[in-house]
Amino acid sequence: MKIDGVPHRTIWLAEDGQTVEVIDQTKLPFRFEVLPLKTVEDAANAIYTMVVRGAPLIGATAAYGMALAMADDPSDDNLEVAAEQLLKARPTAVNLRWAVNEMMAVLRNRPREERRAVAYRRAAEICDEDVEINASIGRNGLEILKEIAAKKPAGEPLNILTHCNAGWLATVDWGTATAPMYMAHDSGMNIHVWVDETRPRNQGAALTAYELGHHGVPHTVIADNTGGHLMQHGKVDIVITGTDRTTGSGDVCNKIGTYLKALAAKDNDVPFYVALPSPTIDFGLSDGVKGVPIEQRSGDEVSKMTGVTETGDVVTVDIVAQGSPVANYAFDVTPARLVTGLITEAGVCDASKAGIAALFPERSRDEAAE
Amino acid sequence: MKIDGVPHRTIWLAEDGQTVEVIDQTKLPFRFEVLPLKTVEDAANAIYTMVVRGAPLIGATAAYGMALAMADDPSDDNLEVAAEQLLKARPTAVNLRWAVNEMMAVLRNRPREERRAVAYRRAAEICDEDVEINASIGRNGLEILKEIAAKKPAGEPLNILTHCNAGWLATVDWGTATAPMYMAHDSGMNIHVWVDETRPRNQGAALTAYELGHHGVPHTVIADNTGGHLMQHGKVDIVITGTDRTTGSGDVCNKIGTYLKALAAKDNDVPFYVALPSPTIDFGLSDGVKGVPIEQRSGDEVSKMTGVTETGDVVTVDIVAQGSPVANYAFDVTPARLVTGLITEAGVCDASKAGIAALFPERSRDEAAE
Repeated sequence: MKIDGVPHRTIWLAEDGQTVEVIDQTKLPFRFEVLPLKTVEDAANAIYTMVVRGAPLIGATAAYGMALAMADDPSDDNLEVAAEQLLKARPTAVNLRWAVNEMMAVLRNRPREERRAVAYRRAAEICDEDVEINASIGRNGLEILKEIAAKKPAGEPLNILTHCNAGWLATVDWGTATAPMYMAHDSGMNIHVWVDETRPRNQGAALTAYELGHHGVPHTVIADNTGGHLMQHGKVDIVITGTDRTTGSGDVCNKIGTYLKALAAKDNDVPFYVALPSPTIDFGLSDGVKGVPIEQRSGDEVSKMTGVTETGDVVTVDIVAQGSPVANYAFDVTPARLVTGLITEAGVCDASKAGIAALFPERSRDEAAE
Repeated sequence: MKIDGVPHRTIWLAEDGQTVEVIDQTKLPFRFEVLPLKTVEDAANAIYTMVVRGAPLIGATAAYGMALAMADDPSDDNLEVAAEQLLKARPTAVNLRWAVNEMMAVLRNRPREERRAVAYRRAAEICDEDVEINASIGRNGLEILKEIAAKKPAGEPLNILTHCNAGWLATVDWGTATAPMYMAHDSGMNIHVWVDETRPRNQGAALTAYELGHHGVPHTVIADNTGGHLMQHGKVDIVITGTDRTTGSGDVCNKIGTYLKALAAKDNDVPFYVALPSPTIDFGLSDGVKGVPIEQRSGDEVSKMTGVTETGDVVTVDIVAQGSPVANYAFDVTPARLVTGLITEAGVCDASKAGIAALFPERSRDEAAE
């Protein structure tokens, strides 16, 4: 997507054909800085320190990390060392594991002198594949936006509400939940996005607002508490969020607070859609509320807030009464009954076992729990 | 309530029998400071700058403001000037207007030499009346807490979730939503309070956490997004919030985000109660969602965050992507169908026209809209 008119991806090959460059997302939204990754250590560090974030971008960074390792030393030993190093950077990231395994599979049986070229080529393909998946999600979601917009009075913007950052900054480009929004905006549709701040880590206020703003998409940041009120007053036409993991029955695990917005959407007859690349569907799980373990993170993410002062210094302050305990549940699960539909690269389906199975018959058959 | 073992009210007469002292709530939770009010200007300023906040406390401060004016100059002219000065400090505050009118009524026909003594006496009574109303709310709510606790396995705490600060800091003492919690805790019940941070002004993380913590009530601060997840997993036994205004049909206007918690409570069969002094019932309104105008406040409350740095400095930082528009709706309306009951000083009733009318037959008859 664009930053002030200039098209960007979140990761790309530098002009020297070897260095990989990424946007340093720890500096956003206060500073835009590009970080060069010259070694596999740099790539692992970028993942570990959250310079890059979002499952697809972490996978892409790991793939390029393997390429950087092969540029340095294409030996069998180094292949193993590099893989281990990258996997350790975020042991629970499914997409990272997938990308490292994929790179190992294409590299292992190649002669050493070919490995560098093969690795860079496959890493670039992994990036392009992510872009194409998201573009497909965007095209499928755009049809839904067009349908809803067609029913609105002329001149009124289509109001979309989103939670967290399922944006291009979490992928290589387009994003998932944001892909239909960018396509709608780029095609000249009159849209406006309500951006949930998304406490405690503020990915909405910091990242979604940053990327929509710099691409030129009209939007307004709101406290997470606000969505219900807006829906009661007809100010939201559709909700679109991303997801970290969706069960084969359509229960959606996503950033904490998603469930509350889905309840409000149901109560006010607002369509609630979830955009996702189909590999994040977990056919082995049916009851998401009972089955998905919810990560608890440090209370510091709630009690400490980082921002920029009037003089431009980036400062972290404590906002909670001193001595008060803090809990920080990172995700919640929205039951399928509250989800209008799933927008995938393969099409849109009902958030139900039957709906998902119809769109993905093979995976549904092969991977479903007995 | 207690601050570190010492009983406090939010407003009291100083030892000199003339100066009024209040807790400077703009400094909380980072500093505990007492501010002396020596003139009616001081009282009006304390209201205007939110040194004092919460409808009952604003009323009490205005009453004492009139007493300070009478101590200075008990003339008819000064009575009018003082009233006007106080009303201007927060033109929309119903309780402030009530307190000023009440003081005018008791003072106007008194001889000038009696006005000072009468004014201090009536201001003290207004404070005591507020304390007694909240204590009654506390006793009525305590019965509900006891009933729910009786059904829990021995040794498990009763988990209460609250939103915003309907605590003693918003009243003269006890608070509304917190009154049953303090009584339960003081009577030896095993309770634990989930405290919603309450964006954008963070009254939960700053004030509710402060007052519960300093009184010794076990509690945990959470992001506003968290309540739904906790309810899905049986970690909330009851929700109690305050309200700014409740319609004669039981629709509850309260801090933005209350509606989302009520939806989650309904979806998970968690009782959702609202604690209120009965004067905040507006019998002239029946449809709260359509009828209650929702204040929009400065976006700065969302985009700027004040906290304390590691070195103890209180600093304000900007947390939203630069240039992104921000909207700030202050309240929302929870429809009566989502409210289990209203806890008032006169008893507990259904959140319905019939329930409220049964508890307040005269007001319901006299004040209801035709």
